[in-house]
Amino acid sequence: MLESLKQQVLEANLDLPRYNLVTFTWGNVSAVDRDLGLLVIKPSGVKYENMQRDDMVVVELASGKVVEGELRPSSDTATHRALYLAWPEIGGIVHTHSRHATIWAQAGRDILALGTTHADDFYGTIPCTRAMKREEIQQEYEWNTGQVIIETFAQRRIKSSDIPAALVNSHGPFSWGKDAHAAVHSAVVLEEVAYMALNTEQLRSELPAISQNLLDLHYLRKHGKNAWYGQN
Amino acid sequence: MLESLKQQVLEANLDLPRYNLVTFTWGNVSAVDRDLGLLVIKPSGVKYENMQRDDMVVVELASGKVVEGELRPSSDTATHRALYLAWPEIGGIVHTHSRHATIWAQAGRDILALGTTHADDFYGTIPCTRAMKREEIQQEYEWNTGQVIIETFAQRRIKSSDIPAALVNSHGPFSWGKDAHAAVHSAVVLEEVAYMALNTEQLRSELPAISQNLLDLHYLRKHGKNAWYGQN
Amino acid sequence: MLESLKQQVLEANLDLPRYNLVTFTWGNVSAVDRDLGLLVIKPSGVKYENMQRDDMVVVELASGKVVEGELRPSSDTATHRALYLAWPEIGGIVHTHSRHATIWAQAGRDILALGTTHADDFYGTIPCTRAMKREEIQQEYEWNTGQVIIETFAQRRIKSSDIPAALVNSHGPFSWGKDAHAAVHSAVVLEEVAYMALNTEQLRSELPAISQNLLDLHYLRKHGKNAWYGQN
Amino acid sequence: MLESLKQQVLEANLDLPRYNLVTFTWGNVSAVDRDLGLLVIKPSGVKYENMQRDDMVVVELASGKVVEGELRPSSDTATHRALYLAWPEIGGIVHTHSRHATIWAQAGRDILALGTTHADDFYGTIPCTRAMKREEIQQEYEWNTGQVIIETFAQRRIKSSDIPAALVNSHGPFSWGKDAHAAVHSAVVLEEVAYMALNTEQLRSELPAISQNLLDLHYLRKHGKNAWYGQN
Repeated sequence: MLESLKQQVLEANLDLPRYNLVTFTWGNVSAVDRDLGLLVIKPSGVKYENMQRDDMVVVELASGKVVEGELRPSSDTATHRALYLAWPEIGGIVHTHSRHATIWAQAGRDILALGTTHADDFYGTIPCTRAMKREEIQQEYEWNTGQVIIETFAQRRIKSSDIPAALVNSHGPFSWGKDAHAAVHSAVVLEEVAYMALNTEQLRSELPAISQNLLDLHYLRKHGKNAWYGQN
Repeated sequence: MLESLKQQVLEANLDLPRYNLVTFTWGNVSAVDRDLGLLVIKPSGVKYENMQRDDMVVVELASGKVVEGELRPSSDTATHRALYLAWPEIGGIVHTHSRHATIWAQAGRDILALGTTHADDFYGTIPCTRAMKREEIQQEYEWNTGQVIIETFAQRRIKSSDIPAALVNSHGPFSWGKDAHAAVHSAVVLEEVAYMALNTEQLRSELPAISQNLLDLHYLRKHGKNAWYGQN
Repeated sequence: MLESLKQQVLEANLDLPRYNLVTFTWGNVSAVDRDLGLLVIKPSGVKYENMQRDDMVVVELASGKVVEGELRPSSDTATHRALYLAWPEIGGIVHTHSRHATIWAQAGRDILALGTTHADDFYGTIPCTRAMKREEIQQEYEWNTGQVIIETFAQRRIKSSDIPAALVNSHGPFSWGKDAHAAVHSAVVLEEVAYMALNTEQLRSELPAISQNLLDLHYLRKHGKNAWYGQN
Repeated sequence: MLESLKQQVLEANLDLPRYNLVTFTWGNVSAVDRDLGLLVIKPSGVKYENMQRDDMVVVELASGKVVEGELRPSSDTATHRALYLAWPEIGGIVHTHSRHATIWAQAGRDILALGTTHADDFYGTIPCTRAMKREEIQQEYEWNTGQVIIETFAQRRIKSSDIPAALVNSHGPFSWGKDAHAAVHSAVVLEEVAYMALNTEQLRSELPAISQNLLDLHYLRKHGKNAWYGQN
């Protein structure tokens, strides 16, 4: 079942070490089949070098029940489910502890758009959530991790398609996209802009975000209706 | 047409990932044939691993019109054209978002010559442009990106052959040279001195540039009429 | 004798350059056989690329006497012995000068749990010892290096199984685990959290540790009786 | 002539890119034959990937005259000569622009012994020279680069065998040892301690050097008459 989606999810997971986003097994990618109401996700704690397509676990989106697969799904599966259920437009999700995105998450700080590298793929500030509350941690922690991301986007009126990533306070990044591949793309760019923003601050503190004009130009050049970047 | 120049441009583009100057497709190299009034440039958004010589796009320097090639040229083509038209002495141009040069661009700061590594290839401060204005962004953005570099060099009376690179404010570096290969060389050195200058500032803030004597000695040792570095 | 343990120790030593934890020969791994009262350790100053299983040195735990092996054991052997003798629950030890853990050791500072990456493998602050005293340095230095780690854990009432690493002031990290492989795992995570904590502090100084709730959730998710991370 | 020494110098030069100490051709290694009064050095501006044993240039120590070799010797040859002539105990010299050692040189600052990684190979502070004077730069610059290193060691009463490296102000590191291989070893350690010291300062500013006791223990453990590190 879902051979093609499993293959995509496998390849996207293998991209994580290729782009230096993970140490050991600290990352996971999933993708969703909306028609079937199923998601495919990396098994928990399995090494990337040995992973096979059929190790991918199929989980019912609504209930979290494992539908197919010998292995236990990623311990972060409930976070993925929460995001898929809240945001019908996304098709793939990535979670890593990539170094510099995690540093911003640990500092509990948003990443402002300080340059066009950021603006090319994120249409504004990448938000960091509030710290999670005791009761959110002690009950349904992974589900609530998703909820605090969703709450952050709702309260700040950010569209998940405009800013395809969030930092979970004291934890690390989640990113997403129309499919698993796009979600990995967002994870790579996030790590890159996190590194750059960290060091930009060493050169100039309290730097404001770039102008709305420049943000519009770069984001829409790649992502708008009339995009003129690339071959399509 | 221009097989040899296309091959040079291809190889120079492939050098960008080799020297760790690019993530994904975030960089482009061009070279110009002054006699024919044509430039050869990387296609837009194409992966380095798959690029072939014949993917390179031939563009008319004066008009920007594509003369040969199946693919759309780099979205930054107009910036390249502006620089070639303003500076007859240059033959190749590189644009990247290399990490540390971009960090200085995001901070909106010049890179002073803080040591001989800088002086060996840049005859003084590497300037960062002013921020671009709303109207420059909204109309002919890529062309105006070139113009703001040219304006910076003109106002500060810097010769493009003395300082073969500039930082575009809030964006990233452009570099150039007598051909595509030399432009890549400048891009590599720029990234190196950007890293060093960033960290030198952590050890000693407000450090002035090195003396004119030392700058002269090192730059002219490699680039002057009586250069005694290398084998020529 | 102890072929299987020697093989484990060899492989764990070879993991150190693989995870970029060592320059030259600056690291060593040992493992202990509690029943025989023997430990197996890397020979002193031998290059990783040439090491063979039978180069591993067998040392009597109680006395430090070499029992088998042509080569001299690591100069840090007495530190390993001190830790094994004090803590019966550990089976493997790693010492490196990995860059960022060493930086914290040089600064003489503890690494607080600033995020869940830390909490996943360390159940609280990773302590840095006090500076060693003149007499501790001049007599039985390596043995006393172990003692100052043990003293630190005793005085702060830290269990060696909760925090499987320490920073020796002005020196560098030691880490441990139930076997050599687990000790290398701790060394890798330590280096990762050391890097992240160093940079987190650049973004937000004086940041306190994460809440006990979050620390509990993450540590116990992987290490508690009811752990639900991984496949076991 | 000097086939064996040329081979050593070639291999030592090839170690520079292997240890990530150089970009392009920015480094050179030499070794000396004291009996013949000749030194062997890398040719100027030649790429490491193409270098052959017979590209190494033989230069008369006393006069600087090329005795054998088709290529021009490194432009830094006179610095090497000055050091060999002042310090009879050294047999090999390395010059690089390795990133972090160069950062300290650009900042014009000494590197204090902040930990045992430093103490293992450098018996105290690694000095940075004063800035060179106009006349020293304009006449015999490379020779005077050596002289300012020698002056620094003489004025501070540092023995070249105790501290096998120096930082030339606004320029970069030179290191040395009993032969070319040892000089490369010093260059690698210098780069490592330069990185660590830079970042240690971010965690604790104004940190003094480690105690003389700890410095003695570590340096003499590896380098003293009764050294007990390694297999000899």
